[in-house]
Order: sequence, then C-alpha cells, then structure tokens
Amino acid sequence: MGDEIERKFQKELNAGTTALILLSIMEQADTPMYGYQIAKLMEERTGELEIMKQGALYPVLRSLENNGLLSSKVDPSVSGPPRRYYSITEAGIDHLPRWREIWRQTRDLIDNILRGEENV
Amino acid sequence: MGDEIERKFQKELNAGTTALILLSIMEQADTPMYGYQIAKLMEERTGELEIMKQGALYPVLRSLENNGLLSSKVDPSVSGPPRRYYSITEAGIDHLPRWREIWRQTRDLIDNILRGEENV
Repeated sequence: MGDEIERKFQKELNAGTTALILLSIMEQADTPMYGYQIAKLMEERTGELEIMKQGALYPVLRSLENNGLLSSKVDPSVSGPPRRYYSITEAGIDHLPRWREIWRQTRDLIDNILRGEENV
Repeated sequence: MGDEIERKFQKELNAGTTALILLSIMEQADTPMYGYQIAKLMEERTGELEIMKQGALYPVLRSLENNGLLSSKVDPSVSGPPRRYYSITEAGIDHLPRWREIWRQTRDLIDNILRGEENV
C-alpha cells in the first residue's frame, strides 16, 4: 500500500516530464527513430530507473506529433511490419528552449518550497 | 497557438508536482489550514509564477486525504459557511521523505538528459 502511493506519485510526475524528455532526445538524435529505438535509447539514458514504460511512450509521441513538434513517416521494413520513424520539426526545435525554461522555473520553485524558502 | 502548447506543458508538469508541494507545505505548517489559506500560502511561496490555480488544489487535497496523507475536519465558522481544515497525518510525514527522494531522482534524470549526458 505504501509502495502503491509512491508508484502513483512517480507515474504522475512522469506524465508531465515524458514529453520534455522525448523532445530533448529527439533533438539530440541526428536521425529519424522508431518507437522501439527511442524506448531503448531512453532506457540507456535513464539507467536502472526505468522512469517510464515503453507503452507510455506512444501516446506522448502521438501527442507531440499532433502539436506539430514531431513529424513521422512510415517506412516499409524488409524483414517485418512497416515502422513509423519520428523526427523533431522546426517547431519542435523552436519550442524546446521554452520548455526547458518552464522546466527550470518549476524545478527551482519546487526545490525552494521543499527547502521551506520564500521564492519571491 | 505557441503559447497554448507551453500552457499545456506547464499544466501537465503541475499535475505531477502539486501533490508534493501541498504535502510539503502542510508539513511545514504548524496549524490546520483550510483551502483558501493553503492557496494563499502557495501563492506567496510561488511569487509571480502562479504555478497553479486555486481550483486545481481541491482535487489534490481530496486525493491526498483519500490516500491517508492528509486528514480534514469541518469546523463551523461564526461568520460564514463551515470550513474544512486540513492537517498532515503521521502517514503523510512518513511518506514525504520518499516523495522527496523520487522527486530528486526524477529531477536529476531530466537535467542529465537535457544536458545530453549518460545517467548510468
């Protein structure tokens, strides 16, 4: 029961941060990537933490595409089903610095409140 | 349209962090507080940022109470409608250090990814 409360908290925290992580990873990637590659790369980057499950990536990828921050292209594969490759768009590159800034402000605000400091 | 994307991102970020901020503020408070007082205190703490709207607090207060991390008591008011006063519970005090740790891990992970570093 205690663990469940912590899992729920982690899940809510991830919900807001996955889009930022994904957009940032797609900016650093220099080639289009498909879902499984992105998930593997995130797994490498997040080490043991397993910050998010692979299944949680797809809705965020779609949402980023719907907002025009990523684009995708389906490529037939010789050995399996066709794959959808994602790339960051110009709009995504344009928005990322603002998202970073929102992240920094929110992060510092939370850290200040956790320390019991005024943030004025 | 650009601003709307940023508002959505901020909102998703807040959804995961409001519970942590609330629990932390309730631990620092030495008296039970009702919703409006908590909202005012958060507004003071968050300065100009207006990180979350007052209406967004109530579902989080109720969720924390449902999880046993806060408790509440309705007190009749002489001058107006009865007020519900919230306090942190023993369970809330017990969970807070674990939430802080989850926050720190998630925060550092995101910062590392934004810097393009490996986190292994």
